[in-house]
Amino acid sequence: MTHVYSGAAGAKQLTFVLVHGSWADAGYWKETAAELNRLGHEAFAPEYPGHGGDPRTDVTHAEITEAVADDIARRDLRGIVLVGHSFGGSVIQTVAQRIPERIGRIVFMDGFVLLDGQSVADQLPPPVVQQFQQLAQASGGQTIPMPYELYRETFANLADGPLARYLHRQVLPEPAGPLFEKLDLKRFYGLTIPRSYLYLTSDGVLPQGEGYGWHPHMSGRLGVFRLIKAEGDHMSTVKTHPGLIARKLVEAGRD
Amino acid sequence: MTHVYSGAAGAKQLTFVLVHGSWADAGYWKETAAELNRLGHEAFAPEYPGHGGDPRTDVTHAEITEAVADDIARRDLRGIVLVGHSFGGSVIQTVAQRIPERIGRIVFMDGFVLLDGQSVADQLPPPVVQQFQQLAQASGGQTIPMPYELYRETFANLADGPLARYLHRQVLPEPAGPLFEKLDLKRFYGLTIPRSYLYLTSDGVLPQGEGYGWHPHMSGRLGVFRLIKAEGDHMSTVKTHPGLIARKLVEAGRD
Amino acid sequence: MTHVYSGAAGAKQLTFVLVHGSWADAGYWKETAAELNRLGHEAFAPEYPGHGGDPRTDVTHAEITEAVADDIARRDLRGIVLVGHSFGGSVIQTVAQRIPERIGRIVFMDGFVLLDGQSVADQLPPPVVQQFQQLAQASGGQTIPMPYELYRETFANLADGPLARYLHRQVLPEPAGPLFEKLDLKRFYGLTIPRSYLYLTSDGVLPQGEGYGWHPHMSGRLGVFRLIKAEGDHMSTVKTHPGLIARKLVEAGRD
Repeated sequence: MTHVYSGAAGAKQLTFVLVHGSWADAGYWKETAAELNRLGHEAFAPEYPGHGGDPRTDVTHAEITEAVADDIARRDLRGIVLVGHSFGGSVIQTVAQRIPERIGRIVFMDGFVLLDGQSVADQLPPPVVQQFQQLAQASGGQTIPMPYELYRETFANLADGPLARYLHRQVLPEPAGPLFEKLDLKRFYGLTIPRSYLYLTSDGVLPQGEGYGWHPHMSGRLGVFRLIKAEGDHMSTVKTHPGLIARKLVEAGRD
Repeated sequence: MTHVYSGAAGAKQLTFVLVHGSWADAGYWKETAAELNRLGHEAFAPEYPGHGGDPRTDVTHAEITEAVADDIARRDLRGIVLVGHSFGGSVIQTVAQRIPERIGRIVFMDGFVLLDGQSVADQLPPPVVQQFQQLAQASGGQTIPMPYELYRETFANLADGPLARYLHRQVLPEPAGPLFEKLDLKRFYGLTIPRSYLYLTSDGVLPQGEGYGWHPHMSGRLGVFRLIKAEGDHMSTVKTHPGLIARKLVEAGRD
Repeated sequence: MTHVYSGAAGAKQLTFVLVHGSWADAGYWKETAAELNRLGHEAFAPEYPGHGGDPRTDVTHAEITEAVADDIARRDLRGIVLVGHSFGGSVIQTVAQRIPERIGRIVFMDGFVLLDGQSVADQLPPPVVQQFQQLAQASGGQTIPMPYELYRETFANLADGPLARYLHRQVLPEPAGPLFEKLDLKRFYGLTIPRSYLYLTSDGVLPQGEGYGWHPHMSGRLGVFRLIKAEGDHMSTVKTHPGLIARKLVEAGRD
């Protein structure tokens, strides 16, 4: 299932494919996609296995990659701006390996940039990995529930209390497997597709600096890339300021 | 002596206790507290020994802690948002150890977060420590005067010249002892009180990054914390933009 | 040749001397200087050998220094705010050594701050140095052409495409020699001239943090300095927001 947001006729300039992250579904992008439409751009937010309405918990990173890549191919989209948020950063890396010929630019929005052979979990401080492993075990092993306190303080730190609670109520336990898979990314590091990093400067999910963090730690792995910054957090700014996010995605995605 | 700022009747939502830093007194918070009142919150800015009208120079960190904790207890405040600026960060750490049951959240605003057994001076680059020691010796050993040039360039860097001079004229030599005391903070690191870090992004008092700095170096010691950022410097932004500081303290302090 | 921008009569407050960087000429400062004038300040933007209308490619860092210092002396300017952008940072270091008595304050705007005995190239990540050496060899050895892609993504990342292309069309190959010269900066580190660092927070020319970067890596070499920040990139913000840059230069340059 893919949410399709169509721009006004004649206004099409860029075609965005927006890939969400963990503890989220394609609805993450709803308001941002509408704002991109309003600016005259097309936006697609593909859903992937184990998320949205799909109850599966044993999905693999390869299945997620395949779902996103197939959706782009089935629509025969070309020259797309492929955006990945959070865990979605690792997905756009693998999708870019699969269908590089359809991609005009890749944009990471506080997204993981893995080195070849790494997993998403490898990017997290050891205490966080331990916490996630304990949460997974406590819930039966295949999913990681998101505690409200962690979500409120580090995923939605700029939200007021009611918005943080509203957002958290919709969060489902995340399939654990893909977070711990080591990925073969050799082809990614040979690609010459232009890349951008949109950094939301108040994102509290990763430590900022000192060996971790979205920027400059992850972004610095991209070689030559376009840096765009905006004030925002990981989960709530797309809801409270979707116009800002859309404008910054255009700055990140345009030629 | 404590400055009490009362909010309008019926508007009370949060109760802030605002702890100032070195080379300052409770007047540091005057305008910010008024803005918090205007937003419907209570705000108290306790003065502590060796500051404000008190001429003592041989105060200890424990005496400062006791004064703040006693003031909170005497007023029977509960569920407070305990805010510490600069040196006041180390004070809210020790106050939190003493009266954790009265505290709803601790908020560091460019405040020191000491590890167990450390002093505030341990957080400073060695040349700054040497400068402070020389200034203390030159002034008789018990206080550290604040040179205008250092204050203007690094404490009030966003101020215009007249404001920097006006603020500096009110700065008294700081009792040196508490800055060099090693603190027992074992209990602090066992507390589960929620914590926030408000980072003023143009604060020039500490080097930004590379092993020093308010954020992410100090803030990173808090474990899970809520990050809030605002453009500001160490001493003048509370005077020029108290409404901004108050709004950000509410974002940092709310549930 | 020096571009002279005169403020309105009676409005003179500060005298700025604005030193441009590599792959640029004095026209870099045109709009900013006009805004400084509008704010009542004088602004001079000296051109130096091998740039602007001068076709020489074998210029030395000493010749550039001499040209800027001579221009200041010839106009008998005193108490100046000496601003250096990018490579111009290294120039204001050497100019400050030559004519310290004429300088009221030095301001680095995303400018290199070299340690004694270093070159500008020493500040760049090794892959960038290699790229520049290859570009120099490919062009005959004495100049480094600026590839559009590198310029667009890292020098003008905030510009839209048409502006990036417009700016890049005016970029001439940069004389390579001065970028690789090791400079004697012993006197600079003995100077007591006040210094400021204006950091444009979206500048993508250097990696941000982790051993490189304008701030805090370069700025941290200045000892006590005034920090001023503004949102901007390396090359396009002076064109799109010259009023912002001028206001921040005044904040950086005033007493």
